[in-house]
Amino acid sequence: MEKITGMIQKPTCTLQEMIEEKRDGEEVVTEGMIHSIRDMGEVLFVIVRNREGLLQAIFEKKEPEAAEWKENLREGMAVRIAGRLHSEERAPHGKELQMTKVEILSKPAAPLPLPIDKWKMGASLEARLNQRAVSLRNLRERARFRIQEGVVRGFRDFLYQQGFTEIHTPKIGAKGAEGGANIFKLSYFHKPAVLAQSPQFYKQMMVGVYDRVFETGPVFRAEKHNTKRHLNEYTSLDLEMAYIDDFREIMGMETAILQYILRLLETEYAKELQILNLTLPSAATIPVVRFDEAKRLVAEKYHRAIRSPYDLEPEEELLIGSYFKEEQGADFVFVTHYPAKKRPFYAMDDPKDREVTLSFDLLLHGLEITTGGQRIHDYAMLKEKMEARGMSEEGMEGYLDAFRCGMPPHGGLGIGLERLTMQILGEDNVREACLFPRDLGRLLP
Amino acid sequence: MEKITGMIQKPTCTLQEMIEEKRDGEEVVTEGMIHSIRDMGEVLFVIVRNREGLLQAIFEKKEPEAAEWKENLREGMAVRIAGRLHSEERAPHGKELQMTKVEILSKPAAPLPLPIDKWKMGASLEARLNQRAVSLRNLRERARFRIQEGVVRGFRDFLYQQGFTEIHTPKIGAKGAEGGANIFKLSYFHKPAVLAQSPQFYKQMMVGVYDRVFETGPVFRAEKHNTKRHLNEYTSLDLEMAYIDDFREIMGMETAILQYILRLLETEYAKELQILNLTLPSAATIPVVRFDEAKRLVAEKYHRAIRSPYDLEPEEELLIGSYFKEEQGADFVFVTHYPAKKRPFYAMDDPKDREVTLSFDLLLHGLEITTGGQRIHDYAMLKEKMEARGMSEEGMEGYLDAFRCGMPPHGGLGIGLERLTMQILGEDNVREACLFPRDLGRLLP
Repeated sequence: MEKITGMIQKPTCTLQEMIEEKRDGEEVVTEGMIHSIRDMGEVLFVIVRNREGLLQAIFEKKEPEAAEWKENLREGMAVRIAGRLHSEERAPHGKELQMTKVEILSKPAAPLPLPIDKWKMGASLEARLNQRAVSLRNLRERARFRIQEGVVRGFRDFLYQQGFTEIHTPKIGAKGAEGGANIFKLSYFHKPAVLAQSPQFYKQMMVGVYDRVFETGPVFRAEKHNTKRHLNEYTSLDLEMAYIDDFREIMGMETAILQYILRLLETEYAKELQILNLTLPSAATIPVVRFDEAKRLVAEKYHRAIRSPYDLEPEEELLIGSYFKEEQGADFVFVTHYPAKKRPFYAMDDPKDREVTLSFDLLLHGLEITTGGQRIHDYAMLKEKMEARGMSEEGMEGYLDAFRCGMPPHGGLGIGLERLTMQILGEDNVREACLFPRDLGRLLP
Repeated sequence: MEKITGMIQKPTCTLQEMIEEKRDGEEVVTEGMIHSIRDMGEVLFVIVRNREGLLQAIFEKKEPEAAEWKENLREGMAVRIAGRLHSEERAPHGKELQMTKVEILSKPAAPLPLPIDKWKMGASLEARLNQRAVSLRNLRERARFRIQEGVVRGFRDFLYQQGFTEIHTPKIGAKGAEGGANIFKLSYFHKPAVLAQSPQFYKQMMVGVYDRVFETGPVFRAEKHNTKRHLNEYTSLDLEMAYIDDFREIMGMETAILQYILRLLETEYAKELQILNLTLPSAATIPVVRFDEAKRLVAEKYHRAIRSPYDLEPEEELLIGSYFKEEQGADFVFVTHYPAKKRPFYAMDDPKDREVTLSFDLLLHGLEITTGGQRIHDYAMLKEKMEARGMSEEGMEGYLDAFRCGMPPHGGLGIGLERLTMQILGEDNVREACLFPRDLGRLLP
């Protein structure tokens, strides 16, 4: 009877093997999609795209199969090509494949609607999002989401090393963690339910189990903001850690995470950084400024009146970014001690000043990419805060159970993956950093 | 001005450091929650639980602070303990901490409602799920989800090595991937929307971009089954890979993934395997049997009439598991060539027999943990199949775009994380392998 014992080996050669291991004249077989075809008179160039990049295959028109190949090969086809490899400094990676055989694996039904082989496609964001499955085949477009992979991978790998346990918590629940009106509602077998705005309650509950936990998953916000910074569904990188004496320990952990991610991008994603011509921000030293002080500094320097004392306006965040870039060369800035009335009930107030919380936001180039802080761990204090805000305990019994039975001091943070990616990429619209964005007007593709 | 440059170092000592690096008589400081207190006459044992395990702290009643400690310390408290370490073979890990100082970091408001310090809590599944934040503090309960972490981590790490790109696709969409009635519906800014049953459409679209992709995330199934095998929200480990010549290549990839995961569990999660007294299944060799042949074999051996020719009944899956365990000592079995009428439209029919598909399920100990197979990559064939099934293209334009513009041959699979975990754990209810299960009756905690 048939058996499977592991990966089925295939004779195809990766681009990396061609570049690093194969000698000139060696026969190889490779697969990919025809990215573009260029007729240069005597020779035809068939540029093949695979996950690793581009490979230049060529054939001369005088060869026996040339007429057939010229007639049959089209952009968008998936092909298996055999040929002899030789060095050619003008080709991508300095290698070129002299075609000896080609097998057509699949054919497109229509020509490509976007010039994905162009370095810059010249299509609007709307057009690219509308045809996402095609536009992402462009090398620069797809490189962005490799960078995004590196961010998530670095986040997880570093936290595994630091003794964090990964958790998976439900996205359908009975009550929103952050409160407010921006909650998607649904019917769950005739019971009212909501989509999770964050894994906040669950990660706190799990801190009593594993001390240190993290989750990378989707969160849902029914915000009616149609801005360049908002998505209605995004990926949140969340962590929660126990036994903190000071909320700065959470900021220290985030700094170390970012340093690890940036190193990982430099080493493992160098190809994509080069394609995108990116210079990474530095997280070596991150300045820390109090909320009220930050407001004062930018009001002074940029001659700007303080309008809202409890919130940072987007423009103020941008100016805080500029201030610390100009004054200290900093890419990241921690803004601390946000006003209690603008933070959720579970935020720990500063015992020295109950009007503010032991909390922070992290800005990268003037955009908030993280909110975090110390949480209340004492049951009585938590109940008191909920009562003072007129909150009902309905649906929160399981959360409160954890505190009733004792919880260690703890805090945590949530990083918006798309926002962090967007800022690393230097893009000005968060949709550029989301494969299939969901916003007020977009539910497709 | 204040700055953060990395992790803030603390003087506390981990359990691992105590076991591996500290000498007898050395002073250490450690933190944890009081798991249990045992009064043994002359001495009091304070068992402290942290993420790494248990530490036995002791003090003698004749010591000056003993009366105060005995009076004040309670189970469920978070504490910071200083003391001198010494070897004690009867203590966990062979180390014991002679307490010299204790600081109470937090106090519970009520005694624990479950005996979490017992090896087996003796509480029903319902009781444990109702008080999940507390019951998970039991060492055996929490060990299960460390095993689950290992499964996800192994899945991702192996696929990174194999050139897969991790993707994050939307969970709110316009149309379900698997079709059928088991879709949760919601209103998305006054537009009808659904929760994703699987990332199927998106991972296929992304195969045209990266050749090989994977995603680990939640999926939602509004199935009205109240069984031990069903959850209405679960974590799906999905992959999709291009340039396959045979759907067995996907089975080969899954076998290699499982081998990697099992090795990772053995090396990195040995402590948890020991706590749970688990013997891991073997994925070294996985037998492959056709759907119709599997039905015939178990009907013959177990004298059981074949009732449904198109589906495997749960009992049949169990018997297939028994058959291959008994006949070949196999834990896993691939069942292939499922009937076309029971597979989704995107499944590739077998060109040799259009009644069956180039698809498979993987059973572990008689339970389906994976469904996978080759997909249709040709636009015309896909359209034809959709038409034959009377499907509307509405909401699927973005998916069809990918095929119209050309797609490589490909296939993939989805692993139900909780089911795989449940089978590795040897549990008989999938809820034992989900932190916060969602089922017909359960939306909380």
